[in-house]
Amino acid sequence: MMAAPRTDIAVVPESRPAMHAAMVAAVESAGGRVVPVADASALMWADPAAASEFPGVVAAAPQLEWIQLPYAGIENFADNLDPARLWTCGKGVYADPVAEHIITLTLAGFRHLHEAIPATSWPEQRGRNLLGARMTVFGGGGITESLICLIEPWDVTLTVVRRSPTPFPGAARTVTFDERLDAIADADVVVLAAALTPETRGMVDAKFLDAMPSHSWLVNVARGGHVDTDALVAALDANAIGGAALDVTDPEPLPDGHPLWAQPNCIITPHVGNTPEMGLPLIAERVRRNVSRWIDGDPLIGTVDVDAGY
Amino acid sequence: MMAAPRTDIAVVPESRPAMHAAMVAAVESAGGRVVPVADASALMWADPAAASEFPGVVAAAPQLEWIQLPYAGIENFADNLDPARLWTCGKGVYADPVAEHIITLTLAGFRHLHEAIPATSWPEQRGRNLLGARMTVFGGGGITESLICLIEPWDVTLTVVRRSPTPFPGAARTVTFDERLDAIADADVVVLAAALTPETRGMVDAKFLDAMPSHSWLVNVARGGHVDTDALVAALDANAIGGAALDVTDPEPLPDGHPLWAQPNCIITPHVGNTPEMGLPLIAERVRRNVSRWIDGDPLIGTVDVDAGY
Repeated sequence: MMAAPRTDIAVVPESRPAMHAAMVAAVESAGGRVVPVADASALMWADPAAASEFPGVVAAAPQLEWIQLPYAGIENFADNLDPARLWTCGKGVYADPVAEHIITLTLAGFRHLHEAIPATSWPEQRGRNLLGARMTVFGGGGITESLICLIEPWDVTLTVVRRSPTPFPGAARTVTFDERLDAIADADVVVLAAALTPETRGMVDAKFLDAMPSHSWLVNVARGGHVDTDALVAALDANAIGGAALDVTDPEPLPDGHPLWAQPNCIITPHVGNTPEMGLPLIAERVRRNVSRWIDGDPLIGTVDVDAGY
Repeated sequence: MMAAPRTDIAVVPESRPAMHAAMVAAVESAGGRVVPVADASALMWADPAAASEFPGVVAAAPQLEWIQLPYAGIENFADNLDPARLWTCGKGVYADPVAEHIITLTLAGFRHLHEAIPATSWPEQRGRNLLGARMTVFGGGGITESLICLIEPWDVTLTVVRRSPTPFPGAARTVTFDERLDAIADADVVVLAAALTPETRGMVDAKFLDAMPSHSWLVNVARGGHVDTDALVAALDANAIGGAALDVTDPEPLPDGHPLWAQPNCIITPHVGNTPEMGLPLIAERVRRNVSRWIDGDPLIGTVDVDAGY
């Protein structure tokens, strides 16, 4: 099997025309040439929702050396990450809008918007500041990096919980997952911004929620699977935490009639940490930069650790 | 009439015990001595709600040289600002929490929390970023200064509208009130953070709202009187602007049944830019610093321009 030229790049599928067009334009502006999958050195996957077609397309094109996935979360593709190829994902691309959404949800909870917005009568004056607060963030990736940058002037004391104990730049404290209950014991807000792995699935359970201060908010912008939803409903019922602001849920979308909808201290947004409108120019720019690096033989941005699964 | 020693300071009334106690402690920690009003060189007014007693207390104590008012907004006291004395107010003290609330309300509107929070079914995915947005702020005081500091990493393009055309530090553009319609024509969000003066009362009228882009949000953390409420209701009815997020209203509190309560694109918070819990340590610190300066004969912080009325 002869290697395809590095300039020759496939962009499929075409089921999401806006993303396909943006990626084609990005490949071409980086000096690449869009070719069929069978002739390409690399594949840009252009529809995050079309994961079911993915294994067949990749298996039929053994010459593909590099595959770029469109989103930061890759669980839908994780079973097909052949370690003989190079994999990249949207890691970091969507970080700034997601970090902005963390701040949105935290402020909404601290400032009691969940009470003020539905009110039809002048509500009670309540609220606390994010300024000067203590925040514990799970995950040491691009979202946490963006978050630290965006709240730099806010005098927030930040603890990062991650796989490695290496101090995270800008964090007051960095600890590993096994120290997580200590890390949340004095947090005004606990933020989930980690990749979903076997280690983190269901991590926010009854014991975790019990370790949070009773005024503390849980903010999840990562994946619904980090949270044991039944335990969360029980904690909210018992006023054991200040509240929960969830951009992701388990199950997702949250079905009509689910008890979380009825929780007064629960804010739910429909997985809009970044919306397609926010994200499309960002992933296109990532594709452009990576194709340019690929052609030049430079290291790619956002490589997937196949063993770790993110 | 003999001048009272500068160390001798009155703290009245006592109707708000927490504020009175905090101010007494602040005076003493600055080296002052708390004495009756008739013997004091200066008066710390310790209850913003007790404005009706204020004229009598001040009139009965002609020896008072300096009077510290507790809040940034002084309209309740404005008729009694005798220019023969020195007046200071809470100007700038509450700026950081109020600037935080500006960001809260802007993000809530941009991220469609007014739709997501009341939802009982997975909502449509919508939203825009404050990151990189264009913001026009009315008022060139401490709140605007705090706001510019807090959003410094957010890549926001900021226009300041104020009385003087002197460029505001950190703003991309500074213009005067008579150029206001130009200043809002391309704004993603228009923020009211100015003092209420005859010039600004009713400034946000039908013409103003018409000059805003149809996606733009109006955020008011200053005084309800800046806005012609009927014109705002009409603009929201007509979807002429993106929405309004109001921490202050006219009338205030907004009465039950007022048409603003029923506007889906209107977020109302009950004047909590800073709550008493947020503000008490801040005003106490201001009193401590000013009393220390007063005793040393140094210029005071937050002096009121009696002619301008703020």
